[in-house]
Amino acid sequence: MASNEDSLISRYFAPLATDPGAFGLRDDAAVLKAAGEDIVVNTDAIVEGVHFLPDDPPDTIARKALRTNLSDLAAKGAVPAGFVLTLALKVQDEAWLAEFARGLGEDIAEFDCPLLGGDTVSTPGPLMISVTAFGRIPEGRIVRRAGAQMGDLIVVTGSIGDAALGLAVLQGRLASSNEDPLIERYRVPQPRCALARAVRDHATASMDVSDGLAGDLAKLCAVSGVSAVVETAMLPLSAPAGALLDAGMIGYEALVAGGDDYEILCTMPEERLASFMAQADEAGVAAAVIGEIVAGEGPPRFVDAAGGEIVLKRHSYSHF
Amino acid sequence: MASNEDSLISRYFAPLATDPGAFGLRDDAAVLKAAGEDIVVNTDAIVEGVHFLPDDPPDTIARKALRTNLSDLAAKGAVPAGFVLTLALKVQDEAWLAEFARGLGEDIAEFDCPLLGGDTVSTPGPLMISVTAFGRIPEGRIVRRAGAQMGDLIVVTGSIGDAALGLAVLQGRLASSNEDPLIERYRVPQPRCALARAVRDHATASMDVSDGLAGDLAKLCAVSGVSAVVETAMLPLSAPAGALLDAGMIGYEALVAGGDDYEILCTMPEERLASFMAQADEAGVAAAVIGEIVAGEGPPRFVDAAGGEIVLKRHSYSHF
Repeated sequence: MASNEDSLISRYFAPLATDPGAFGLRDDAAVLKAAGEDIVVNTDAIVEGVHFLPDDPPDTIARKALRTNLSDLAAKGAVPAGFVLTLALKVQDEAWLAEFARGLGEDIAEFDCPLLGGDTVSTPGPLMISVTAFGRIPEGRIVRRAGAQMGDLIVVTGSIGDAALGLAVLQGRLASSNEDPLIERYRVPQPRCALARAVRDHATASMDVSDGLAGDLAKLCAVSGVSAVVETAMLPLSAPAGALLDAGMIGYEALVAGGDDYEILCTMPEERLASFMAQADEAGVAAAVIGEIVAGEGPPRFVDAAGGEIVLKRHSYSHF
Repeated sequence: MASNEDSLISRYFAPLATDPGAFGLRDDAAVLKAAGEDIVVNTDAIVEGVHFLPDDPPDTIARKALRTNLSDLAAKGAVPAGFVLTLALKVQDEAWLAEFARGLGEDIAEFDCPLLGGDTVSTPGPLMISVTAFGRIPEGRIVRRAGAQMGDLIVVTGSIGDAALGLAVLQGRLASSNEDPLIERYRVPQPRCALARAVRDHATASMDVSDGLAGDLAKLCAVSGVSAVVETAMLPLSAPAGALLDAGMIGYEALVAGGDDYEILCTMPEERLASFMAQADEAGVAAAVIGEIVAGEGPPRFVDAAGGEIVLKRHSYSHF
């Protein structure tokens, strides 16, 4: 009696759905226990040819779909509680699905984020994966984009710009002698879940960098009613990104307006910095101060070490 | 600074996101308060050309995307608590978006189900809408597919088969002298949210009919470890569906294997029936007994009034 669709779900995804609330994916819905905490909800979709490339390894596509969502939860200060997955497939390719499910299963274990349910549909168009992820956070403690205060320091985790450079390499728009780490950053984001607690404890405002540091910081500032100054010399860059910059092959715009970073961008009073950095260090996540929140309503200004302004022609990726 | 994507969200969707947990769609995530209840999570996607037709009115596409999810929540006994929306658009068509948002806004109000967040992405392929909906239910009270007991009566709400016939009409495969109600049922499902309480109070097992009554009942039976007998003469049919059947233009298979019904299919002991029916009547939702749960492991049998078996060549819609 089972349809191919049911068979696909039972073979590839039911083994991943071990949480009791998932009912083994043999029901119409799942149960998420709240346990007195707030549930933080985030949804992000990735589309073939837009957010990933058709020949990206299937396990990395699964990881990216989940991790872009986990990155948002971490930036809000929430701990993963589970997710649901919608998979729109052109064809039922067993080898592809097996690899996709393997990558997903590994990330479910790594981030302790159970698969609760999903929907598998056919599409004549590009492959698309939509994830809605849930996080738990003590009541009222979500860290919002709104909340940055004048004088707050601006902190970002990891390094900025690698993923956008990785995409440029994959698309043949850029050559690098050390391209693998850049490509890896494009394909497999590193959500900073280990920093959720530190963000919750210290940040006045927070978001993840997904569309580009410049544009995302502008959004955080706008909703907080402030502006910002970023010193480009303080931007944390990976070795390959730094080498491309030093060689003049890219400018700062490629780093701060490219997107797909999935790092945490947050603000905090100076007196909180040491504790935040200690927690980041303990979590094994690099973090760097890149500038300061200032009064005003304009977009963030990017200045070089001498204080000269670097004018950006674009600030972030937009779908339309 | 705002991208076209942000502008699209702020113009069409932010006005719909009035729940405080949505932060006006100006944050990365939303907060869902659990208030000591279980959160029921359901996700269903609809794809242009698969679940709806390219020239369906945009407001009906929005309604279908939300209502298919609300139908699942109702069948589980849960009351709507909110939803997130992923919209994959080929182009940014302002007139289309305005109508889509209007339909969505009307349904948000009708079903008291706030928009909490979403993601808008571009796609080179067909339009796709993925909704993840949340319901509230007292702890541990979700009604599952598993739970049907031998001797239970099988009940369905509304009428069966109309949506599949409506699709056949739209595709030119069927002619009906009274086609509008059938087309309307295909485009705009009627989720039985008003029956959530009655289901929770009385049903031993429940699901919504989305892929076809025969196949969905088979799933419910399989996971409950039982079988079923359905009397085709007891199937609740609309006037146009009944006329097509009487005229010999369709058989029972077109009614019970077509899908898109979004009615509740549930089971209950005979002694619960009167109370359930009284609650259904009060809610203004028709409900009918169509058969009985029996011992066994085979798929449900469909019999005519004389007890003769009606053999179905297919039981439900499958994507693959």
